[in-house]
Amino acid sequence: MKSNYADDSLALHTDLYQINMTESYWADGIHERKAVFELYFRNLPFGNGYAIFAGLERILDYLKGFHFSESDIVYLKEELGFKDDFLSYLKELRFTGDVYSMVEGELVFANEPIVRVETTLAEAQLVETALLNIVNYQTLIATKASRIKQVVKEEVVMEFGSRRAHEMDAALWGARAAVIGGVEATSNVRAGKLFGIPVAGTHAHSMVQAYKSEYEAFHSYARRHKDCVFLVDTYNTLKIGIPTAIQVAKELGDKINFIGIRLDSGDIAFLSKEARRMLDEAGFEDAKIVVSNDLDEYTILNLKAQGAKVDVWGIGTKLITAYDQPALGAVYKIVSIENDKGEMEDTIKISSNMEKVTTPGQKKLYRIIDRENGKAEGDYITMQDEDPTMEKRIKMFHPVHTFISKFVTNFEAVNLHVKVVEAGEIIYANPSLNEMRNYAYSNLDLLWDEYKRSLNPEEYPVDLSQKCWDNKMRNIHDVQDKVDDYVNK
Amino acid sequence: MKSNYADDSLALHTDLYQINMTESYWADGIHERKAVFELYFRNLPFGNGYAIFAGLERILDYLKGFHFSESDIVYLKEELGFKDDFLSYLKELRFTGDVYSMVEGELVFANEPIVRVETTLAEAQLVETALLNIVNYQTLIATKASRIKQVVKEEVVMEFGSRRAHEMDAALWGARAAVIGGVEATSNVRAGKLFGIPVAGTHAHSMVQAYKSEYEAFHSYARRHKDCVFLVDTYNTLKIGIPTAIQVAKELGDKINFIGIRLDSGDIAFLSKEARRMLDEAGFEDAKIVVSNDLDEYTILNLKAQGAKVDVWGIGTKLITAYDQPALGAVYKIVSIENDKGEMEDTIKISSNMEKVTTPGQKKLYRIIDRENGKAEGDYITMQDEDPTMEKRIKMFHPVHTFISKFVTNFEAVNLHVKVVEAGEIIYANPSLNEMRNYAYSNLDLLWDEYKRSLNPEEYPVDLSQKCWDNKMRNIHDVQDKVDDYVNK
Repeated sequence: MKSNYADDSLALHTDLYQINMTESYWADGIHERKAVFELYFRNLPFGNGYAIFAGLERILDYLKGFHFSESDIVYLKEELGFKDDFLSYLKELRFTGDVYSMVEGELVFANEPIVRVETTLAEAQLVETALLNIVNYQTLIATKASRIKQVVKEEVVMEFGSRRAHEMDAALWGARAAVIGGVEATSNVRAGKLFGIPVAGTHAHSMVQAYKSEYEAFHSYARRHKDCVFLVDTYNTLKIGIPTAIQVAKELGDKINFIGIRLDSGDIAFLSKEARRMLDEAGFEDAKIVVSNDLDEYTILNLKAQGAKVDVWGIGTKLITAYDQPALGAVYKIVSIENDKGEMEDTIKISSNMEKVTTPGQKKLYRIIDRENGKAEGDYITMQDEDPTMEKRIKMFHPVHTFISKFVTNFEAVNLHVKVVEAGEIIYANPSLNEMRNYAYSNLDLLWDEYKRSLNPEEYPVDLSQKCWDNKMRNIHDVQDKVDDYVNK
Repeated sequence: MKSNYADDSLALHTDLYQINMTESYWADGIHERKAVFELYFRNLPFGNGYAIFAGLERILDYLKGFHFSESDIVYLKEELGFKDDFLSYLKELRFTGDVYSMVEGELVFANEPIVRVETTLAEAQLVETALLNIVNYQTLIATKASRIKQVVKEEVVMEFGSRRAHEMDAALWGARAAVIGGVEATSNVRAGKLFGIPVAGTHAHSMVQAYKSEYEAFHSYARRHKDCVFLVDTYNTLKIGIPTAIQVAKELGDKINFIGIRLDSGDIAFLSKEARRMLDEAGFEDAKIVVSNDLDEYTILNLKAQGAKVDVWGIGTKLITAYDQPALGAVYKIVSIENDKGEMEDTIKISSNMEKVTTPGQKKLYRIIDRENGKAEGDYITMQDEDPTMEKRIKMFHPVHTFISKFVTNFEAVNLHVKVVEAGEIIYANPSLNEMRNYAYSNLDLLWDEYKRSLNPEEYPVDLSQKCWDNKMRNIHDVQDKVDDYVNK
């Protein structure tokens, strides 16, 4: 970067309008009014029946470090023309609010609050862009990984996509999100270092080329590395690659741990079956076949249907870029704000598209679990002062098609929001990545299979309480009255 | 991050196999043999007729800072089990080679070397993943931005996608790449600070909600900001949003610079025409209409066909994620390596797919420009020792379908590779972003319109010299002989 400015804070990793609005709030003296914002998405990605939340650890790091650096202030003044009075305010600003959030690995569905920020209007506004940037990407990748793992089932999945990721942060945090979603290892060493993820990899075609033959290259690799996976498709997989791998494995015997071979091109179904046959015939029944070549859950499903013999799936581009739907559309909307009497007042955003109308008010989110079969009946959004854990029977109904309703009894209502930040202090200790992955995996047991199908799953219910619904309708009518008043004045 | 390790270098931002291979090279004493690697992609993204190269500045930063930190070494030893002897070598390693590269903003096509790395085998291998990670993303976004700008033509395009980008680096470097491709401004303030990009933005729906009415919110905004663009779709665009914007603009008159309005939802064709009519009738013929709402080059083309009245296009998700093709498949392949006699020897990677067969040898890349009309006739790849600038007449032929050929005379052959790193020292000064964008823009004049069509463009010729072609064929036959020898031995 040729800039005069140091990259020494993330406070400017935001859209300009957040700072513009904050300036107006500050100038009008309403910047410290309490506001509640909710972060949620409107549609599940990939046509999947669920998503896996990831991103909290990065959010907590960001909020903890939130401040405008000296160079940020100089830039805002010199280049964007912000005034000293407002800048003195920004300079001292830290995040001082409360944050409630799902934990990483939680199952999440459309239109339910994942993260709830309760703080001053100014702070809540300034952190919007970064929070969305983090959650949108990490949740997308955790979800894609989970879809892939659902199809793969018992074999191992490795994340190999760094070279195709959207710049470095995506390679790094994408590897971590993939692990939360179910992936076992990554090729990215930095992700291994920073997150404790198992790191995997052997050698590339270039090594075979550097030694001019597989025979030399495999021997060279084996001299220094005990665990050996030989890449067999540099020149000709069946004629020279696999035969040489077998030859070298026989020559070296117990001197190495011959884990197996890797296929990186050609028809995986055909080649993996041939490879299996050749390895078995040579007495290497335990040797693994690792494959990689533009794979995703669709190709894996098809390869399995054709009887491909694969032990380890290396997934690159399609996972790390969420290739078939590379964006999760999470939004962050204000639902309640303090008025000039110090009371919290609900607020709504109207749209001609009913799905885009926000649900006003401070709310809570519960997962309703049937005590008899242990399965989730749906998620249930209530107003702040409701407590379904104290109720014997609740009515759940669809938030758009309200005629779809059911009464639920003998349930457990599990609060999905954990208070993770209190008055600006992080009060949540991140579990290990392994714990997050296990949590995500065990959560999937809560879901009936109909929600986990990779193609055309049933829609899992995310319902509003009666009170929450009534409040939303009242707010809509209030706005309609306001518009009518304006038109008729 | 809960890790014990600091994120204090990017040397581990690589795939594990690069380090494994390097260890073998080092153990065998061939790590310092000279190797040549080329970085290129095999297919243009988005079905476009050209791509715009971006990423060099970040590559130079990365190579300059390349080193394994103390904590990298500790991690490699403690967690991955690498031995002290090899780690002492890594610890001292810096990038000491030469790099030849296109400049940012250059037009680039499939199968031509964008970056050529000439250094020790070890160094060339270790930097592969990061180089691909950088070029694949930044070139993709610069190209997408150029496609959008080609459709938009004279109006302004702004990059608004931070919240949907793949984590923070993508938001930041994506904004920069978009500018190289033709975008005029970004909403990301950090990108503005670090790269000097103009930053744009006004206010969001939440501000209207915080003030409970457009009237209050617009007045509040105008009290502190001279330049005003009012967002008009919080409650009802035509009934209350636009009328209030007009009302406030009239009330404030010369006290503000009423730039215009922003539409962020609904039918942009219909609403923009209505907005234009209402603004014109109110005497605000100069007021601009800014639109944003999941736009890309396809929707823009359609909106324009329907006569939408738009002055500024804000592009979010579809640009920053390259939504319709979120990965460029650039690869990095060894083409030449020093043998044990100290001579450079060509090397090839074979595939059953002809397009995946590498083109061996140290090569150069020229753009052949017709002196009469100033248009590019095609790109021309030669061996290192050829010099088409000294020739009067060259034969260009398709590298796969060789019967497609032509003779070119009266041409200028422009060398597209600049030496940017010499013996590890950066010897290239990055021009300003504006210069890069202007360079990209003026480059497009070199292309006939047939290559610039957004749908089904003609294929621009990227041809091999006769010598280069013969060399490739010779290498292919050598490998075939080697495979036959192995099978028949």
